[in-house]
Amino acid sequence: MKRSERIVAMTHHFKENPRTLTSLPYFVETFQAAKSSISEDIDIIDHMFRNLGIGKLETTAGAAGGVRYIPDFSLDNSKSFISQLIEVLEDPARILPGGYIYMSDVLGDLNWVRTIGKIFASSFKDQEIDYIVTVATKGIPLAYAVGEMLNVPVVIIRRDPKVTEGSTVSINYVSGSSKKIQTMVLAKRSIPEGSNVVIIDDFMKAGGTIQGMISLMKEFNATVQGIGVLAEAEDEDEERRINDYISLLKVQEVDERLQRIKIVPGNLFL
Amino acid sequence: MKRSERIVAMTHHFKENPRTLTSLPYFVETFQAAKSSISEDIDIIDHMFRNLGIGKLETTAGAAGGVRYIPDFSLDNSKSFISQLIEVLEDPARILPGGYIYMSDVLGDLNWVRTIGKIFASSFKDQEIDYIVTVATKGIPLAYAVGEMLNVPVVIIRRDPKVTEGSTVSINYVSGSSKKIQTMVLAKRSIPEGSNVVIIDDFMKAGGTIQGMISLMKEFNATVQGIGVLAEAEDEDEERRINDYISLLKVQEVDERLQRIKIVPGNLFL
Repeated sequence: MKRSERIVAMTHHFKENPRTLTSLPYFVETFQAAKSSISEDIDIIDHMFRNLGIGKLETTAGAAGGVRYIPDFSLDNSKSFISQLIEVLEDPARILPGGYIYMSDVLGDLNWVRTIGKIFASSFKDQEIDYIVTVATKGIPLAYAVGEMLNVPVVIIRRDPKVTEGSTVSINYVSGSSKKIQTMVLAKRSIPEGSNVVIIDDFMKAGGTIQGMISLMKEFNATVQGIGVLAEAEDEDEERRINDYISLLKVQEVDERLQRIKIVPGNLFL
Repeated sequence: MKRSERIVAMTHHFKENPRTLTSLPYFVETFQAAKSSISEDIDIIDHMFRNLGIGKLETTAGAAGGVRYIPDFSLDNSKSFISQLIEVLEDPARILPGGYIYMSDVLGDLNWVRTIGKIFASSFKDQEIDYIVTVATKGIPLAYAVGEMLNVPVVIIRRDPKVTEGSTVSINYVSGSSKKIQTMVLAKRSIPEGSNVVIIDDFMKAGGTIQGMISLMKEFNATVQGIGVLAEAEDEDEERRINDYISLLKVQEVDERLQRIKIVPGNLFL
């Protein structure tokens, strides 16, 4: 096999298995190539991944060593992506009665969703994380996009218990904006004790839902290592219950009468 | 830039943009390389993608021409994957009261989910599809995995209306197994008239939910081009309402007393 052919196969392998350690002998055997050739291939791929701003290959020496792809998404790429996203979301046609913004099409589009996942994953890439946690429904695609990049599984909190979840742990909490009592339910076996989790959601207003997820994680003795929301509403009353989170967008204004939306980059870019 | 470096960047590009046409001049300009060199690069990548069983590059000539990556997942790969999945799912520890199988961990694991998506996408790869449609909650990750490979957006039907969806279309239907009246809701602006859709769900028993989704699609004047379910229950009473679908798994038996699960490959492999 020629170098260029090996490089196709190895680039594919790294992209399919982010953050997964692959031993050099695996490549040597698979491609029937000398270890020195494989090392050169890895250098070329690492160099290009860095050039493309999509991360790097990390090599660890020793018997248990190998190479793994650590995806990244550069701050420049993130900024230009968020500007595009803001342009799309500020379209007045998105204004819904009550001053909400229609975003389901964006959350259904893999190109937007996967890039949002890459930005979150880059922010959390140095933390030890076992699970990405979200609550049904709109945050689910974002949680999977982050999980894909960090190579960790996703756990979905539900609003209602379901027979296919087995025994569950549930909590009740008061929603920050509507002041209604809400329920969250999670299968007992979904998260082992002592896990490290990152919470992902699409939108944060007063922060009640996020606070609910934090409480539920306490029931599982899980440590919340990070919180990421796609968009936050401007917190005029300074009543927000959550302080330590990252947001990609901040919705400053939705004016139904003037048909105007004003969105700025979130606190990740401050 | 050397060939091997270009090949890293191009392999990355094709994997990030499945089924998307890229013109040769784009590559010529990006890499400052001769058109003949780019053509050779494309041949090498195409050859290796085929060898790896992950699809092919499709080249179209002419002014509006270019090259696109059509992902595929070979039948051999699919079969061996499904065998592994069956082994994992037949673990008696998964049996839940009522004869259900706990599958949330599998549906939360990106490695399983993405491969399931590839198998479905391979089955539907020759159809014209505009949207992947699923109903909350468990089918969502599968729908996104299919959407990613087919490069089409995902639309999520909800069980309850939500203010952030704007005006909606809803239907009521009778669930096949529980005989209860259920509701499905979808934002009016989510699917344009005349769209072609594929329905994806995690599980089908009597088929009532799928039938509900088909009815809802009629309200949108959408054509259902295909239906894919991860697992179907054996249809002992031959009461199933849906005939034309593909399944990856068939659950033949869940015996709580004997602590035994029996699963076989679904109708895709018949």
